[in-house]
Amino acid sequence: MRHTSPSPITENLTLDPQDWSTMRRLAHQALDEMLDFQTDVRNRPVWREVPEASLDLMAQAAPRAGLGSEQVVADMLQHVVPYPSGHAHPRFWGWVCGTGTPIGMVADMLAAGVNASSGAFNDAPSRIEAQLIGWMRDLFDFPETTSGIVTSGGSVANMIGLAVGRDAIIGEPLRQRGLTGLSGTPVVYTSDQVHSSVDKAMMLLGLGTDNLRKVGTDDQYRIDLDALRAAIEADRRRGLRPLAIVGNAGTVNTGALDDLTGLAEIARHEGLWFHVDGAIGAIAAMSPKIRKKLRGMERADSLAFDFHKWLYVPYEAGCVLIRNSKLHRQSFSVAATYLETPPRGIAAQPDSTYLRGPQLSRGFKALKVWAQIREYGMDALGRIQEQNVAQVQYLSQLIQAEPRLEQSAPSPLNILCFRYLPEHLGADQTDAINYELLMRLQERGIAAPSSTRLNGQFVLRVANTNHRTRFEDFALLVAETVRLGREIEAGL
Amino acid sequence: MRHTSPSPITENLTLDPQDWSTMRRLAHQALDEMLDFQTDVRNRPVWREVPEASLDLMAQAAPRAGLGSEQVVADMLQHVVPYPSGHAHPRFWGWVCGTGTPIGMVADMLAAGVNASSGAFNDAPSRIEAQLIGWMRDLFDFPETTSGIVTSGGSVANMIGLAVGRDAIIGEPLRQRGLTGLSGTPVVYTSDQVHSSVDKAMMLLGLGTDNLRKVGTDDQYRIDLDALRAAIEADRRRGLRPLAIVGNAGTVNTGALDDLTGLAEIARHEGLWFHVDGAIGAIAAMSPKIRKKLRGMERADSLAFDFHKWLYVPYEAGCVLIRNSKLHRQSFSVAATYLETPPRGIAAQPDSTYLRGPQLSRGFKALKVWAQIREYGMDALGRIQEQNVAQVQYLSQLIQAEPRLEQSAPSPLNILCFRYLPEHLGADQTDAINYELLMRLQERGIAAPSSTRLNGQFVLRVANTNHRTRFEDFALLVAETVRLGREIEAGL
Ligand SMILES: Cc1ncc(COP(=O)(O)O)c(C=O)c1O
Ligand SMILES: Cc1ncc(COP(=O)(O)O)c(C=O)c1O
Repeated sequence: MRHTSPSPITENLTLDPQDWSTMRRLAHQALDEMLDFQTDVRNRPVWREVPEASLDLMAQAAPRAGLGSEQVVADMLQHVVPYPSGHAHPRFWGWVCGTGTPIGMVADMLAAGVNASSGAFNDAPSRIEAQLIGWMRDLFDFPETTSGIVTSGGSVANMIGLAVGRDAIIGEPLRQRGLTGLSGTPVVYTSDQVHSSVDKAMMLLGLGTDNLRKVGTDDQYRIDLDALRAAIEADRRRGLRPLAIVGNAGTVNTGALDDLTGLAEIARHEGLWFHVDGAIGAIAAMSPKIRKKLRGMERADSLAFDFHKWLYVPYEAGCVLIRNSKLHRQSFSVAATYLETPPRGIAAQPDSTYLRGPQLSRGFKALKVWAQIREYGMDALGRIQEQNVAQVQYLSQLIQAEPRLEQSAPSPLNILCFRYLPEHLGADQTDAINYELLMRLQERGIAAPSSTRLNGQFVLRVANTNHRTRFEDFALLVAETVRLGREIEAGL
Repeated sequence: MRHTSPSPITENLTLDPQDWSTMRRLAHQALDEMLDFQTDVRNRPVWREVPEASLDLMAQAAPRAGLGSEQVVADMLQHVVPYPSGHAHPRFWGWVCGTGTPIGMVADMLAAGVNASSGAFNDAPSRIEAQLIGWMRDLFDFPETTSGIVTSGGSVANMIGLAVGRDAIIGEPLRQRGLTGLSGTPVVYTSDQVHSSVDKAMMLLGLGTDNLRKVGTDDQYRIDLDALRAAIEADRRRGLRPLAIVGNAGTVNTGALDDLTGLAEIARHEGLWFHVDGAIGAIAAMSPKIRKKLRGMERADSLAFDFHKWLYVPYEAGCVLIRNSKLHRQSFSVAATYLETPPRGIAAQPDSTYLRGPQLSRGFKALKVWAQIREYGMDALGRIQEQNVAQVQYLSQLIQAEPRLEQSAPSPLNILCFRYLPEHLGADQTDAINYELLMRLQERGIAAPSSTRLNGQFVLRVANTNHRTRFEDFALLVAETVRLGREIEAGL
């Protein structure tokens, strides 16, 4: 396939289908089966094991010769679509996973169809993302100086917030010189309920997990402000360099809400960066009622939150806002001759997102969020968020009314931890029985709570970021939990 | 909406459509118009400005009341789909952007439709991603000990590779203690052609851009190995701590290929981490011919590459392989009670991807890559990659035959830099004329090269990762470039 003279070439290969009508038929078929999946999801098991035949397919080597679109679409529909972890199901409440929406799917299809990248160019996708960031700035009462970026999720949003905080507090030369040789080890403060993504950011940013102080919490799992003040003072006395405070707008274990106003005050007083991890709770500010509980969040220097959790948007989409756009840019901007920004043409995008985060190429995640907010409006989304809280309160009442169940912690938001209390067995077997109970709930496809440990006890954990859940689904959960608990006890 | 007694509730809100048949109609309409876009893309302008009416829409505040699905789908089709930056067009050769494929779009739709997360759970998406990583390990001749992860792109892949290298060479306690207080500043070595994402990784990882040594290159833009050896020795004498070498499997400016075997030898001899940035070239190893040029890549400790560039997969998808899976895990693993991995149930996923990268929640990017490789097979994908190289050689010949054009650098792969030589004007105006020429090519929707600077000169840059390009598209580029050059000269 060498061409020695500049003569016109006749043979041209392409990945476009020779026969678009077949591809069109297959794409419509896939869409139809997908919509069937969504309309029918309540009647499916929450989760099931990937069967042997599918596992075999997933053990095959990469084909040298193509299998064709007909085969590949059929394989996706037969082997992949039926065996996800179950996030779309009305009784999936494990970890903190959103449900997804049809409009989100359509938006993702369109984004992939035009092969949109977002943020680097002078185009509609970049404008839509900028508009969405503006919406978030307004929603959270952040000032005009704010910049932000859509991220892969809360973890990277936390990492970006802490990176900007690190560079802002330690000062400009850090970008050039790095952390080695810095005098005074930087320390970040948060509660013992902090999400592990903050530990991960400490590792990645070169700060080290030892320098994340996990301050104790009260009986409602909120950070102890006095203990925090004491920790900062002790570190200063030891010659360390307090850097940032991370507040929780919804902790992962129980949905606890730190006193964010109190934390903002301490951060201001001490000259520290104030980052809020709002991956769980922040976006529920669409509900004016829930918003009240999040007071103080608007004072953050950086705020991380998620669309794929409590806004129900399909995976993946999170966000971070940085109050001071200059500081944001300082931490990520790099110059390159192949990335110049002329005032005209495709690259006329002076505020490119590659100056605000770790990525250069980026997919168009903003579209599904934008489309979803526009389809339903913020009020309706806020009402569903309120319904999720009300449903969890209903679950709490059901548990109170059921002698075999015990709620394990307060539930100020949409997360609730509980456990089954064996009728005939000692407390030492309670963990094992609850573990077995969780497995049976999942394996039989009944419901998907996840688990955690509170005060050393193994507990079932419900995180309700599900717009398909009905109140009666929690009645079913309670009934099945008690039934399975008895079944397990009987079998022992 | 408070529920004071555990009585069954009748009203249940949901984001599911009240009328699925409307949603079904809209989704099929969107799909049809999207496929029309793809079949018709050659007849569209490569790029055009977002028009006023669309900009107005993109300046609106977030709606409190929903606009409904009918309106939102119509808006996406009218205001967003027609105004991307143009990556899907057969004459888009700017930066390094893949084209996208119909199967990639269908896969992304299915991933969003089931709301799949990937990597954290015991489900089909996690298995598909693991299979894909296995395919890549085999493709690149990496050993069984290799682990990998699908990333958002080459930038994050580079960051992960360097993070693991940093932690591996400096040693375990870095995770806990961080970089502060380390004796001996770590230094990373690469060529002056390195991509800016490596600078960014240096900043983010706390290593500092001053500690990235950009070693000079030869007349083919390949790193000078003697200068590299000398730089390492000089740094050791100064008490610094050489850490890693970053080799280029395709530089961003010209597609130059470093002597990777030479770099691997130096890294081994000096005890340094060897990272290869293969964002541009590596995945072209699907072609046995191109693969030969990439020799030495198989010796990398970490290899970053992209699917959304030269594999034509829709945005976004990249990948990183780490030769030693233990080291990979050490840099990212965090433990948390709410993330326990039982041997059964939904969370029975001992090798979760959150232990191998910065994310916890993750979309299912692997599906589109998997589907595309299976539909076409590796041989056909390799042939298109070869065609891209042959097309660029054809362009080179056309330029040689055209007195008004000059090729600016060797073109060993699929990237070619060139410029227009004015007939009547001095060399000092050549940059300005070429800039104007680039703007007119883009603004008139004819073709989209991008630009860079080589030896201080402004040059047009073609990066051909386009499966829709035909040989005659380059004849058109050459003719139009000369025509526009003359037009600009005449207008001055
Ligand atoms: C409190 C909290 N912060 C951060 C995260 C990480 O968010 P993501 O999974 O979107 O990366 C989570 C995820 O569960 C979380 O619960
Ligand atoms: C050589 C090289 N490395 C890394 C990158 C970054 O890759 P991505 O844009 O996928 O983040 C690029 C992007 O153009 C590149 O050309």
